[in-house]
Amino acid sequence: MKRYLLTPGPTPVPEDIALLMAKPMIHHRTSEFKNIFAETVQLAKSIFQTRNDVVIFASSGSGAMEAAVSNVLNENEKAITINAGKFGERWTKLVRAFGANPIELSYEYGDYAKPEDIKKVLDNNGDVKAVYIQASETSTATYHPIDEIGLMLKEYYPDVLFVVDGITAYGAIDVKTDDWGIDIAITGSQKALMLPPGLSLLAISDKAKDKIKNTKNRYYYFDILGEIDAGAGKFTPAVSLVIGLNGAFKRLLDEGLENVFRRHALLSKATQEACKALGLELLSRRPANSLTAAYAPQNIDSSKIIGIMRDYGVEISNGQGHLKGKIFRIAHLGYFDKADILMGISTLEIALRKLGVNAAFGEGIKRAMEIFADE
Amino acid sequence: MKRYLLTPGPTPVPEDIALLMAKPMIHHRTSEFKNIFAETVQLAKSIFQTRNDVVIFASSGSGAMEAAVSNVLNENEKAITINAGKFGERWTKLVRAFGANPIELSYEYGDYAKPEDIKKVLDNNGDVKAVYIQASETSTATYHPIDEIGLMLKEYYPDVLFVVDGITAYGAIDVKTDDWGIDIAITGSQKALMLPPGLSLLAISDKAKDKIKNTKNRYYYFDILGEIDAGAGKFTPAVSLVIGLNGAFKRLLDEGLENVFRRHALLSKATQEACKALGLELLSRRPANSLTAAYAPQNIDSSKIIGIMRDYGVEISNGQGHLKGKIFRIAHLGYFDKADILMGISTLEIALRKLGVNAAFGEGIKRAMEIFADE
Repeated sequence: MKRYLLTPGPTPVPEDIALLMAKPMIHHRTSEFKNIFAETVQLAKSIFQTRNDVVIFASSGSGAMEAAVSNVLNENEKAITINAGKFGERWTKLVRAFGANPIELSYEYGDYAKPEDIKKVLDNNGDVKAVYIQASETSTATYHPIDEIGLMLKEYYPDVLFVVDGITAYGAIDVKTDDWGIDIAITGSQKALMLPPGLSLLAISDKAKDKIKNTKNRYYYFDILGEIDAGAGKFTPAVSLVIGLNGAFKRLLDEGLENVFRRHALLSKATQEACKALGLELLSRRPANSLTAAYAPQNIDSSKIIGIMRDYGVEISNGQGHLKGKIFRIAHLGYFDKADILMGISTLEIALRKLGVNAAFGEGIKRAMEIFADE
Repeated sequence: MKRYLLTPGPTPVPEDIALLMAKPMIHHRTSEFKNIFAETVQLAKSIFQTRNDVVIFASSGSGAMEAAVSNVLNENEKAITINAGKFGERWTKLVRAFGANPIELSYEYGDYAKPEDIKKVLDNNGDVKAVYIQASETSTATYHPIDEIGLMLKEYYPDVLFVVDGITAYGAIDVKTDDWGIDIAITGSQKALMLPPGLSLLAISDKAKDKIKNTKNRYYYFDILGEIDAGAGKFTPAVSLVIGLNGAFKRLLDEGLENVFRRHALLSKATQEACKALGLELLSRRPANSLTAAYAPQNIDSSKIIGIMRDYGVEISNGQGHLKGKIFRIAHLGYFDKADILMGISTLEIALRKLGVNAAFGEGIKRAMEIFADE
């Protein structure tokens, strides 16, 4: 059966990038690879919209998240963690795992962080070292107001580090690392960067580097300053993935970042509007452009919708944690275009019809087609 | 220019495996991928020659090394580290990085660990928790007597954990994990497993798992017990590399492990004998079958030899640390066969001649051809 991947990571890999990575292996200590690595780091700065140093780890995205905690926080130091979904929860777990004290600001799944809530916690706690948040919380398809939070911190708490997991944001949503004062920005290969999983990236400000120099926690593999010093990898880098990343960055920059963001915004709008036209409620109060989460109709298990779509070769994602069976998530980040969304929405409609939900049959795909036609 | 990779990692990737990894991405939470992952873990047990649990991390080999320290040792606990090269030194650094106390047994580069030396340290220290060693020390091309050390520990110190970095051994040399009492066995994707870098693997005994349960160190990403519980990856696994690993394991098992070990032994013998026929001195007193390290002739910088071979498209490795410029290393682990060695030796001879070392011109390649012809 022909397969179509509409999941929020791994996402589809462009055929030319897949073949680029299939080329004969080269050694990681050759000047050839060192040049590719150095160029890839420079390209990463464009994607991150930063002048800060960039580090590339051979790991899942969680590896860079760990580095942003283990390298940065001392035992018993306080950090605010924003928990509005499964990946926010991971920040809390990480901060605790490394002996620091998370002050968790939690929001209902689908809700987003408010700058004033964060400011209040900071007003009441003079010794918070960092704020840990997602840009786009993948489990709820929510985009936190990173810009407002960043600017609030800049104005009132310039010494507090701002750490943003942008794993489903960078390369899809216009996140301005330097303008918004993001001290540690994180992303991973298998999302908007259109690669297989296996690389995590991190951009780090001088302020954050200074904090690391005064921190004594235990780590070895995820060593941010060590990686910066080492140049092309303190340990053997994931050569083929780095070569793929180089190609993927060039692809994004050839399209032009503004166009990339516009494409994601359009696909997001069509998906959201189509869901609404089908009478489906969106989970998020502040939807991200990288993926759309919607509730299944009442009394319908979302797993069934996903199962029927899979019969047509289309793979979307279920809810995570307590939302499993209640919502579904359609991704539109990375190597995605309009026809993917049309395919996703029409197979979604088929699934709903097969489950006896007939009321608005045809209205979802019509709305999506309208949006693309009138663009 | 056509390129030939004769380095000890990354090593060449077979074309069919490269293309297997270039196939369209699949999602890591589908039953399709979970089945591949589970099968790959089973295949890994055959390669490790173990019945123990196997864990696969998305990281360089050093990631699994870190897990074998951070998960296992408490603060201030003692562990013996064998330092006979750059990778042995890494064990010492790792043990220290996680707050434990390394008792370092160090050997001259090229020398190998003696079971009686380790036993003496254990006799004098009642509270050593683990012995950390390499099977094949890649920086010196030396194979430690893992069998003898393992059997000594089994007999005299059955409670001490035996941790073996087999990154350039498994899949090339006959290392019997269970028979020799290896509690934690480690390997990486980019060596004998013929894949790009980006995966580390670890096989762990029940004895080592019990120790972990009673250990309180800080870690999150490299969580051995968490990975075993999670099944197909606690975090997003490196999907394409795992699919490649599945194919690579099948390739090794199709050839038959005995044949794989015999092939590596033959290539090793030809390379060593050719070097000797050229009047070159081997670095190692107990050479590994995975790569050969030899001193450059007196007054010749090995970097020059390597540079000339590169002009012919052949990439070999320099020495590491204080051996840089003094030795060169020719790999024969993974996707290597006889013709690779003939090409390596003949370009080595050309390089020596160009550098004015003419004495034994033709003798090296003749010896290698003899060995292959008379096999």
